[in-house]
Amino acid sequence: MKVNIPESDQKRVVIIGGGFAGINLARKLAKSNYQVVLVDKNNYHQFQPLFYQVAMAGLEPSSIAFPLRKIFQKHKNIYIRITKVLEADLPNKCLKTTLGIMNFDYLVIAVGADTNFFGNENMAKYCIPMKSVGEALYLRNAIFNDYEIALSTDNFEERQGFIDVVIVGGGPTGVEVAGALAEMRQYILPKDYPELDNKEVDIYLVQSGNRLLKGMSTEAADKALIYLEKLGVKIILNNRVTNVDENFAYLKDGTTIRSRKVIWAAGITGNIIKGLPEDCIVRGNRLKVNEFNQVECYDNVFAIGDIAYMEEEAAFPKGHPQVAQVAIQQGKHLADNLKKMSKGKPLKPFKYNDLGAMATIGRHLAVVDLPRFKTQGSFAWLVWLFVHLFSLIGMRNKVIVFINWVWNYFTYDQSLRLIIKVKERNGKKV
Amino acid sequence: MKVNIPESDQKRVVIIGGGFAGINLARKLAKSNYQVVLVDKNNYHQFQPLFYQVAMAGLEPSSIAFPLRKIFQKHKNIYIRITKVLEADLPNKCLKTTLGIMNFDYLVIAVGADTNFFGNENMAKYCIPMKSVGEALYLRNAIFNDYEIALSTDNFEERQGFIDVVIVGGGPTGVEVAGALAEMRQYILPKDYPELDNKEVDIYLVQSGNRLLKGMSTEAADKALIYLEKLGVKIILNNRVTNVDENFAYLKDGTTIRSRKVIWAAGITGNIIKGLPEDCIVRGNRLKVNEFNQVECYDNVFAIGDIAYMEEEAAFPKGHPQVAQVAIQQGKHLADNLKKMSKGKPLKPFKYNDLGAMATIGRHLAVVDLPRFKTQGSFAWLVWLFVHLFSLIGMRNKVIVFINWVWNYFTYDQSLRLIIKVKERNGKKV
Repeated sequence: MKVNIPESDQKRVVIIGGGFAGINLARKLAKSNYQVVLVDKNNYHQFQPLFYQVAMAGLEPSSIAFPLRKIFQKHKNIYIRITKVLEADLPNKCLKTTLGIMNFDYLVIAVGADTNFFGNENMAKYCIPMKSVGEALYLRNAIFNDYEIALSTDNFEERQGFIDVVIVGGGPTGVEVAGALAEMRQYILPKDYPELDNKEVDIYLVQSGNRLLKGMSTEAADKALIYLEKLGVKIILNNRVTNVDENFAYLKDGTTIRSRKVIWAAGITGNIIKGLPEDCIVRGNRLKVNEFNQVECYDNVFAIGDIAYMEEEAAFPKGHPQVAQVAIQQGKHLADNLKKMSKGKPLKPFKYNDLGAMATIGRHLAVVDLPRFKTQGSFAWLVWLFVHLFSLIGMRNKVIVFINWVWNYFTYDQSLRLIIKVKERNGKKV
Repeated sequence: MKVNIPESDQKRVVIIGGGFAGINLARKLAKSNYQVVLVDKNNYHQFQPLFYQVAMAGLEPSSIAFPLRKIFQKHKNIYIRITKVLEADLPNKCLKTTLGIMNFDYLVIAVGADTNFFGNENMAKYCIPMKSVGEALYLRNAIFNDYEIALSTDNFEERQGFIDVVIVGGGPTGVEVAGALAEMRQYILPKDYPELDNKEVDIYLVQSGNRLLKGMSTEAADKALIYLEKLGVKIILNNRVTNVDENFAYLKDGTTIRSRKVIWAAGITGNIIKGLPEDCIVRGNRLKVNEFNQVECYDNVFAIGDIAYMEEEAAFPKGHPQVAQVAIQQGKHLADNLKKMSKGKPLKPFKYNDLGAMATIGRHLAVVDLPRFKTQGSFAWLVWLFVHLFSLIGMRNKVIVFINWVWNYFTYDQSLRLIIKVKERNGKKV
């Protein structure tokens, strides 16, 4: 069965994935001479940099997720299909999806990456990833659920399992989660759980290398370490979590940490779709593309964002970092190239313009590396807030997030500490 | 194992249920001479009158739910325990809970009521109830999920199943859901789903009696009917849904309606706890209480709110209506009586002060019955908004709801159309 999409004289571009890359590509193809079909398994775009604030009960999912249909309400050449892609049939220019067969003239793979557990089944089973709003909500529920149980747990060791948290990975996500958890311990716990001794709550951040924030400057890394230690986070460098089970994290040096919540922010792997040419898949399950984001062998198939692996001579001979900025720029660039293509003009190679990186640790505590200067502390924190607020899609989201942040700032409180579960009916979720 | 609650010289009042009755009782017992333990299976109080707006993507759960711990942060004599009560052992003055055994001196049963499917297993399996935030979220997800599938459904009949909705019950919930769905069809659908013909979308409201809003005046009922018909809701009076399956609702008069979403707002039944004296349980699974809300045979056991059945001479010889106002007033009244009790003073009988009732149908369309006057239309709608806004707990919730309402009013839009699922880990939810 064919998926119901109106036939058109326009060439059809199918974009798989409504992340930063897919959204920016589709937006720039609005009003173009293409029929664009944006395919995603979720009906919303999610703003990954703020997942950790959802997990920490500081923001609601709806503040950082935006319905795809709303983004493209006004663009008649853009169609949204919420479905899962089962297989790509590149020679026959079609996709198999849960809704049926979907033909394309051009295919853009923008499926991003998911958590990489490096094949460890226990990790996959017991660790908590942070790569979707749904996973962030799981973490939120788990934190508050475990505090409740801890109240009725007399045994100290057992209680540790419920209140201690281990974070694996010292990148931006790991650092931000650790900082936010430490602030929760400091400001929320004594008010909400006066019966729990907040000195018993330990937050561990485990990083395999000898420094945090590998992609950033040493100044940023050093300050992040100082800030986290000031907040009481126990930072374990040059060590690794090699295994986990329901109650413990096991480290390479033989130590064990009792914790039921091991947050995994230590690596990602491309979301490979069945049917893609095997020899194009390189390290990290990324798709090798040329300087025009074309997947080898097929000049009508492109990959952009985290899933794409492009060697940019001189500047990025080993590929670009898997960050939002690369995805955004590749999406926009590919839109330009597709427009050029339709006019028979030659394509332009992609060049990444590195705008810098940043991470926040807590109130007045952030680190920012910009191309021309570096800063840490209060000013960096304001820069971080400003950049993230204005990167959100939609005015309503900006307003709601702004109010929440101001509110939380002055009250030292995140008030969304609800353990809400979507009810199931008839034994299944929607 | 005993639940971990500090021993105290104060008499212990255990309140089961953090709804309107339980919350109001506990609040008035703050700073009293009792140790109060508030027990609920959720860690939040939910504001039931606005569930339907959560289902219709107009509000977030966090705007109408409030963490119990936050409500009682400042009150040292109030303890919160998030657990499920398995059984009551009244002679031995204790409860069995999932956290362990909990002793009480006084027990207050404020567990409210849940959806009543009148023993019909198909109804329980296929109908969508609206008695919790989690159920409202289920409905929200189901609506938008089904619209997505409808887009790819060529067959008209089959498509009807995905887009049509049947609402069972013409009380305030049924009327409010029907109105909100009709407005969604009018304002949202053409923008988000231009490929769907919104004239195909049918909204049925089925009511067994010959009028809507049975608890309100005939003026209110008549106007509600006119408003709903103006919005295009198909109202079916003097008929009943006698059975449902995955695709159809079957009516008493032999008609069938193809719909995968049958919303059940047609009856409630008390949440009886195991171990309560059988002969105290009366019609609707309510607990018979005397004028002091005491459950017969036990002068230290009380029931308040929807679960309580009290015959108030002259005014309410057949018991009070199961509405928020009764619950609130009984909660406050019982607090006063418990304080009297501790001072050895005689108890005061409860008298319900009927403040009226209201329901909203849509923009500028509401019906309000107050003791001294009745009104319908724009002014009633403003009264409804005002009363509901100020009944919400917490300033932050009021602000966020207010902004959302103003936003939705001017943009004709509810922007929370996200199908968000909490991820499961390790095969289970938190």
